[in-house]
Amino acid sequence: MNRKAIVVFSGGQDSTTCLYWAKDKFETVAAITFDYGQRHKIEIEQSKKIARLAGVSQTVLDISSLGDITSNALTEPSMEIVDDGKLPTTFVPGRNLLFLTYASIEGYESEAFDIVIGASETDYSGYPDCRESFMRSFNETVDLAVERRFNLHTPLMYLSKAETVELAMKLDCLDALALSHTCYEGRRPACGKCPACRLRLKGFSEAGISDPLDYEEKE
Amino acid sequence: MNRKAIVVFSGGQDSTTCLYWAKDKFETVAAITFDYGQRHKIEIEQSKKIARLAGVSQTVLDISSLGDITSNALTEPSMEIVDDGKLPTTFVPGRNLLFLTYASIEGYESEAFDIVIGASETDYSGYPDCRESFMRSFNETVDLAVERRFNLHTPLMYLSKAETVELAMKLDCLDALALSHTCYEGRRPACGKCPACRLRLKGFSEAGISDPLDYEEKE
Repeated sequence: MNRKAIVVFSGGQDSTTCLYWAKDKFETVAAITFDYGQRHKIEIEQSKKIARLAGVSQTVLDISSLGDITSNALTEPSMEIVDDGKLPTTFVPGRNLLFLTYASIEGYESEAFDIVIGASETDYSGYPDCRESFMRSFNETVDLAVERRFNLHTPLMYLSKAETVELAMKLDCLDALALSHTCYEGRRPACGKCPACRLRLKGFSEAGISDPLDYEEKE
Repeated sequence: MNRKAIVVFSGGQDSTTCLYWAKDKFETVAAITFDYGQRHKIEIEQSKKIARLAGVSQTVLDISSLGDITSNALTEPSMEIVDDGKLPTTFVPGRNLLFLTYASIEGYESEAFDIVIGASETDYSGYPDCRESFMRSFNETVDLAVERRFNLHTPLMYLSKAETVELAMKLDCLDALALSHTCYEGRRPACGKCPACRLRLKGFSEAGISDPLDYEEKE
């Protein structure tokens, strides 16, 4: 396709896979990465390495003032990361809404009307703005906001973590996944024990593929 | 109503009127003001004076990184303000989408599910995200994003500029309108000649009320 896509790119496993998915589908790909005061800044550093490796341009946008109006365990070091089946303490309310809004503004300005985000309902972790219904609604809203026809792509929406790993294999991006960051504790080598590390390891394990990432220990 | 409202508050005429509309309707009102690198910073200073006068709390959120991904006459001093009937050069694509997203995030965090914005279709100046259809769509999207039921209020949607002035009279907030900022050129006294000043003066004139704002000259 002779089109340009913007990928919402955190530097994590899912968005890295999406970056390569977009490279496979679109002629030009640009990544947009958000510095929102996240506890794990190393994610941003890793995202830069991956963007270089993938040969895509990247905007790192400082929206750290988000911390002025929110309180959650990802932005506040004093809060404990708890995932007890209810809405996790890592929930940043409206985060995907905000990320997609900025991605669409950049898309509008650079005439890129394809937006890619690595949201998934399958491993639904209680974040309502990861769901297909939200994505469809956002697509309509942004079209009305700027009077353009955007295409919002969510290639991982119905994939399990194992299927996402298989997709990454197909897209030949395991070297990029070795650079990707997942650990909620912000550790490299990754801690292997936080909810994010455990979910990642489970996906690789179920796909029967060895995770190229370094871990302190694997449970 | 025993509810808290968040007002998207620029410090201009319309949002000042909305602030007082909200004070009349809701028990608690909080203003959210955006520093997005606008040419007319004086707007923000005036907004603080109005919030103090109105006795409402105010968050001034620095989202000036928006300028990293957009180019328009409001944020770039080198661009001329042109309003030739097409989309004006002052258009910041997705601005209301972005403002409402932040307002809703603050609303979610502070349990304020009523959001007020001074958008109007009547004096429709080519900004698609001022329209009712966009507002309805945004309301659905944000509800899905955070799984809450927001009420998005647009009290000026179908008022002419003259009717907005009459509403301000009824709400007894002309003293606040004397502090409000409208001029695209960022001048106080206002220039009286830019499209924004001319629209404001026309509204007061049609309402038969004297604008309490100081002007360099009135055309």
